[in-house]
Amino acid sequence: MSGRRRAGGGRRARAEPPAPRRDVNYRTLRNPFPPMNLFTQDRVEAMHAAALEVLERLGIKVLLPEARALFKAGGARIAPDGEMVHIGREMVEAALASAPRSIPCLAGARHRDLVLEPGALVFQPGAGAPHATDLKRGRRPGSGQDFREFVQLTQAFDVLHMIPPVVEPQDIPTHLRHYFTLEAQLTLSDKLPFIFSRGTPQVMDSFEMLRDFRGLSDDAFHGSSHCYTIINTNSPRTLDIPMAQGIIDFARAGQVSIITPFTLMGAMAPITVAGAITLSHAEALAAITLAQLARPGAPVCYGTFTSNVDMKSGSPAFGTPEHFKASLAAGQLARHIGLPWRSAAGSAANLNDAQAANETQFGLWGCLMAGATVVIHAAGWLEGGLTVSFEKMICDLEVLQMVAELCAATEAGEAEIGLDALAEVDPGGHFFATTQTMARYQSEFYQPLVADTANFGTWQEAGARDASQRATAIWEDILAQGPAVAVDQARADQLRTFIAKRTAEGGAPPES
Amino acid sequence: MSGRRRAGGGRRARAEPPAPRRDVNYRTLRNPFPPMNLFTQDRVEAMHAAALEVLERLGIKVLLPEARALFKAGGARIAPDGEMVHIGREMVEAALASAPRSIPCLAGARHRDLVLEPGALVFQPGAGAPHATDLKRGRRPGSGQDFREFVQLTQAFDVLHMIPPVVEPQDIPTHLRHYFTLEAQLTLSDKLPFIFSRGTPQVMDSFEMLRDFRGLSDDAFHGSSHCYTIINTNSPRTLDIPMAQGIIDFARAGQVSIITPFTLMGAMAPITVAGAITLSHAEALAAITLAQLARPGAPVCYGTFTSNVDMKSGSPAFGTPEHFKASLAAGQLARHIGLPWRSAAGSAANLNDAQAANETQFGLWGCLMAGATVVIHAAGWLEGGLTVSFEKMICDLEVLQMVAELCAATEAGEAEIGLDALAEVDPGGHFFATTQTMARYQSEFYQPLVADTANFGTWQEAGARDASQRATAIWEDILAQGPAVAVDQARADQLRTFIAKRTAEGGAPPES
Repeated sequence: MSGRRRAGGGRRARAEPPAPRRDVNYRTLRNPFPPMNLFTQDRVEAMHAAALEVLERLGIKVLLPEARALFKAGGARIAPDGEMVHIGREMVEAALASAPRSIPCLAGARHRDLVLEPGALVFQPGAGAPHATDLKRGRRPGSGQDFREFVQLTQAFDVLHMIPPVVEPQDIPTHLRHYFTLEAQLTLSDKLPFIFSRGTPQVMDSFEMLRDFRGLSDDAFHGSSHCYTIINTNSPRTLDIPMAQGIIDFARAGQVSIITPFTLMGAMAPITVAGAITLSHAEALAAITLAQLARPGAPVCYGTFTSNVDMKSGSPAFGTPEHFKASLAAGQLARHIGLPWRSAAGSAANLNDAQAANETQFGLWGCLMAGATVVIHAAGWLEGGLTVSFEKMICDLEVLQMVAELCAATEAGEAEIGLDALAEVDPGGHFFATTQTMARYQSEFYQPLVADTANFGTWQEAGARDASQRATAIWEDILAQGPAVAVDQARADQLRTFIAKRTAEGGAPPES
Repeated sequence: MSGRRRAGGGRRARAEPPAPRRDVNYRTLRNPFPPMNLFTQDRVEAMHAAALEVLERLGIKVLLPEARALFKAGGARIAPDGEMVHIGREMVEAALASAPRSIPCLAGARHRDLVLEPGALVFQPGAGAPHATDLKRGRRPGSGQDFREFVQLTQAFDVLHMIPPVVEPQDIPTHLRHYFTLEAQLTLSDKLPFIFSRGTPQVMDSFEMLRDFRGLSDDAFHGSSHCYTIINTNSPRTLDIPMAQGIIDFARAGQVSIITPFTLMGAMAPITVAGAITLSHAEALAAITLAQLARPGAPVCYGTFTSNVDMKSGSPAFGTPEHFKASLAAGQLARHIGLPWRSAAGSAANLNDAQAANETQFGLWGCLMAGATVVIHAAGWLEGGLTVSFEKMICDLEVLQMVAELCAATEAGEAEIGLDALAEVDPGGHFFATTQTMARYQSEFYQPLVADTANFGTWQEAGARDASQRATAIWEDILAQGPAVAVDQARADQLRTFIAKRTAEGGAPPES
């Protein structure tokens, strides 16, 4: 979970001095996996060129007049029907030139700060689910309590680096929901918070809350990135009002937009990987262009979420070979334009079983080998995003922690090769008590979170619990420990006062 | 499962002509994943040098007099106690020079032939388990029926390329077991069969059965590889009698030995990845040297199976970060010596749950990114190899099929980028009925084996079955269809006659 871990020991009595304990850093990861290419470079360039042609010739429908005005001022042609925007390639190229390659993000504590840039590796749990589920309370509409509990769980694991809106707190009125979700993030976590793009009034409320909670001046807030939003285009080729407004508001405030077209192959996108990713790329480029028109240099993260539908049922499928390939293709386009980028794992399973584990991990490896900067839905996501499971979050966290272990350097010096240790043990002997083992037994190996390696008999005697049942005990234990961050009470009081005032004034309904 | 697949359709009525159906080839795979290095090249060379020093200075205990005589004749120094063999580095280098880089293997049908060489990718299910388990019959000692059923299941999936001894058929007397296991493989499968190295009498019986069943002369049999065995050293640094005899017998007959030290870090091997892999490498080099001394040019596959023990329980753990790293390190040494090589996935879980799925898949990615030629225990293996599960085999096969999909080229030509398709759909529309989708809906996507993408309500109405329960229906269905290969009845009768004769003569007890 966090930095210093309980480790090893107990297997047998040992002489003094004790071996050093395990110390891990899962907070700042670099992707150690060699990037995998799906297509040759000329095909990547052809897809990029096709996306530019889509934007120029076919255009993208932009529903927000302010956004159309920005595009027009930047040189775009607005079609006679008034909503279709045709964006020239030179505008896109200018935007790609002004978008930063590296985005420093300031969280609630310096050791939680992030830099979003190619080569970095940042994990988020599943996000945006209308439902929550666990073995104790069953599947239900996401609530405020669920939202707070998922913030606590996200805070508890160093390998989760940003807070997303894991579930939609449906019992909180929509005009007050942004107060609730940001208060939960700020008071239960010191990680980078998420703000919904549901219209300027909510966004401005949220910026003000965050600025004051961090004790910043307006200039200091705007001078650095302190939060992020997710921008989903409406594929194919539509940018709706709250999303366009979010791009503009976040760009002007110097806050991070993560651009994520959601393009299901064979449904809202072409059936081919190349076609779906070309569409996704075109839409992402349009959104990036808008951000750069609103404020050159605005921090934007390129992104995609492309998977396929199951052609038998018509349902979305995740963790498929096509999903994996789409991540690889998007990674090539991200490298082509040089921006940090977001990809996604995911599962269509309906419970935390072998399918769920296999799909999420398969999708994760697609993201890792595609060189994704931010991997969202990396833990807990079920039913193609309709539910987040407490137990699945714990089980997926095991995989993320194991991946994080692979990000650390492994030594093969003389001490590790250890000819002395090899000479110490005769044929037929064992290495339990070599000098090398004694010095390292508490620190050499990753210690599992939920995996149980007991033999069958011991496991049966202990109740024959599967991974889901063991995961229940783990999240219950974490939640029972209560919030894990120190909060400045004066700032928290000020935050609540602000929320009370704004609530009395009627809050801020979402825009659509 | 096999070549031509039922695919797509049913989602809605479609006009003539029907779209082409999906055709896949999972039989001949090349590894598409860029190899990942754990260590710098100078460290790989240092490990290789350390392994040579282990063999030269510390030596390896060889229990079989004939093997010691071969080593001695090749220039090795035999220690005064008579069993410790000190192998000079020039002997190892000569062996590595004569070992083939590419091993063609002839199976029971030409489309099942394999070439074991760097770059090839070959999968085997779990092997060697004393127990079998499934949801219908529970966990029990492996039986002859289990053995036959696993051969049938292995035959049914093109993505499994070789037949291993999935379970130990404990109800078959040990002096007759090799007849039973080879007859099952030859009459239920046309894939490359496995022969146990349990002493020369059993091996010679098996070679004779295989030679005659394939209708080969002695020369033709010895001139090509028709079967393989697994050689496990006894770590640390012991080569026992049946293993050494197996190396010699297989080498002289031109049949394949897959050399696999089983080195658990912190138990029978050093606690470090570098140390454990150095020991594994030394033992593998000793076995390869023996094979080349028995017959220069003998087909040998380098291998390792290195994971760690859980330092809390002392139990073996699999699919861990250390297991992954060990595969990477072994892959670097395999590339250093240029031989085809075997690695292994695996799980310590006690049932087919999320832990089981995550461990096997995590270990699998270690093998894939290490560039393993043969990946064993890739499906079904539980309890660190003490059990193979019918349901887990099906669930893991889903992952192997998805990996196989990634081995095929993906196109991004003009037809796939599909500017026409993109132009065909207006904002707010969908791609269900574009010309491009209509032409490809039956062939574009992988069709899941056991994954269920139905939405929660539909899934609940259908019985809310988890992946294991669905897997039960799948393996039951395959077994109910009966054997899938055509068998030459005259050859099968001849095989049974041979077995009856040898049984009457007393069979061949295993040696130890």
